[in-house]
Amino acid sequence: MSRPEHVIEIRIRYGETDRMGTYYYGAAADWFETARTELLRSIGLPYSEMESRGLFLPVIVMHAEYVDRADYDDPLRISVSAEMQGRIRLRCPVHIINAETGADVCKGYTVHAIVGRDGRPMKPPHWFLEAIGRE
Amino acid sequence: MSRPEHVIEIRIRYGETDRMGTYYYGAAADWFETARTELLRSIGLPYSEMESRGLFLPVIVMHAEYVDRADYDDPLRISVSAEMQGRIRLRCPVHIINAETGADVCKGYTVHAIVGRDGRPMKPPHWFLEAIGRE
Amino acid sequence: MSRPEHVIEIRIRYGETDRMGTYYYGAAADWFETARTELLRSIGLPYSEMESRGLFLPVIVMHAEYVDRADYDDPLRISVSAEMQGRIRLRCPVHIINAETGADVCKGYTVHAIVGRDGRPMKPPHWFLEAIGRE
Amino acid sequence: MSRPEHVIEIRIRYGETDRMGTYYYGAAADWFETARTELLRSIGLPYSEMESRGLFLPVIVMHAEYVDRADYDDPLRISVSAEMQGRIRLRCPVHIINAETGADVCKGYTVHAIVGRDGRPMKPPHWFLEAIGRE
Repeated sequence: MSRPEHVIEIRIRYGETDRMGTYYYGAAADWFETARTELLRSIGLPYSEMESRGLFLPVIVMHAEYVDRADYDDPLRISVSAEMQGRIRLRCPVHIINAETGADVCKGYTVHAIVGRDGRPMKPPHWFLEAIGRE
Repeated sequence: MSRPEHVIEIRIRYGETDRMGTYYYGAAADWFETARTELLRSIGLPYSEMESRGLFLPVIVMHAEYVDRADYDDPLRISVSAEMQGRIRLRCPVHIINAETGADVCKGYTVHAIVGRDGRPMKPPHWFLEAIGRE
Repeated sequence: MSRPEHVIEIRIRYGETDRMGTYYYGAAADWFETARTELLRSIGLPYSEMESRGLFLPVIVMHAEYVDRADYDDPLRISVSAEMQGRIRLRCPVHIINAETGADVCKGYTVHAIVGRDGRPMKPPHWFLEAIGRE
Repeated sequence: MSRPEHVIEIRIRYGETDRMGTYYYGAAADWFETARTELLRSIGLPYSEMESRGLFLPVIVMHAEYVDRADYDDPLRISVSAEMQGRIRLRCPVHIINAETGADVCKGYTVHAIVGRDGRPMKPPHWFLEAIGRE
């Protein structure tokens, strides 16, 4: 099975810009997270439900490369996918382009531990691996 | 007893600026909160301990008036005080000036419910009222 | 003419929650702003274009009342309108409900100065007043 | 000459926590940036002045590894250094520990382009390289 992918579109918020007249680099964390949320929903694993069921995906690595400027209200198209990295980690590559011009804006990835209520790493349950396309 | 007051100084973070070349208005929430945190610590009520003891002060009103621009790295002097508003609410007036020029930057207040672990409003315990100068 | 109104729906971002398990009160500034952006677009005044034309609407007052909790991924329905307040200010009342339950979450308003490139208050041009429904 | 280093201490803001009861991973961008600001000031290059002189250091890479939880009001000790990476990039490694317990919290780095007012990469001027310890 192929790994799940998802695409969302958002606009840059005013508060995400900075005095350089482009987006603040910290905004990427929110954009990566928003796209991940929708990816998980699209494969039947709404993350809020996952947490209710006792499965958490804390970020353990964030990597972002800022390719080009983008300004307030620019529409961003964010593509995100998910794949297991070993047996107890999830990796989510992200690619952001300007939805109007097609220009690259930012790319990167997050890596997530898979932990239970006790905060300890665990092998993810079958339903999780199935949705991720691993089984 | 007079009501407690406290003053802190912080600098405007880069991420708190926006494309207008001044601070984003949403940053005021963080500044009010940072000053409140230090006010509570200064009167012997570190808020993290209060929450551990089961007393929470969720914000129920925020009001801010933005008087003048201020930019990245500008030093802000934030004065905050606290007073009971009736028997089950706390009110924290805030005044922010540019610490270099003395010019007014922002003023406002927050109002807080006083709630227990169950989220229900409660009359604050004696030790809280004493620290606030009400008893 | 009646004053313009607009409704958007967004979901609460993970980064907008806090350790109390509800949304951080500062997030309201972003929500108010996001709804305003779409309101202005809907009446033919995209704010990014307004700034390009030299008309700015800096926030001079923000007032928010936090009515109830709301958590990560909860869908919010945000209604915003706009009306002149005197001749050189714009007022934007906002009302946020949980789009699933209909429960009130937050309400408030922002007041905006209308300023030119020089930062000075000005009477808004005809095309602005027309779009706002004042002429 | 050795590369410049600097250490600051800050406390985690309430708004930087999330519903998992730890800090939101996006907060690292602000922490890295706050430490960089003070590092640059400490070597005689206040970044606000650099921008006034027409030298900008936009972030082109951010990498963060999240080692352990940390909660509201926890004191963080942030160490940052700066070194040239080739001739037109600056690299700033960062290491964050809990100032009370000494435990690792987060580590990573940012890479910065060095650009002029026109947004084009440039070889940094002599005074910049001198302060960075490259000449």
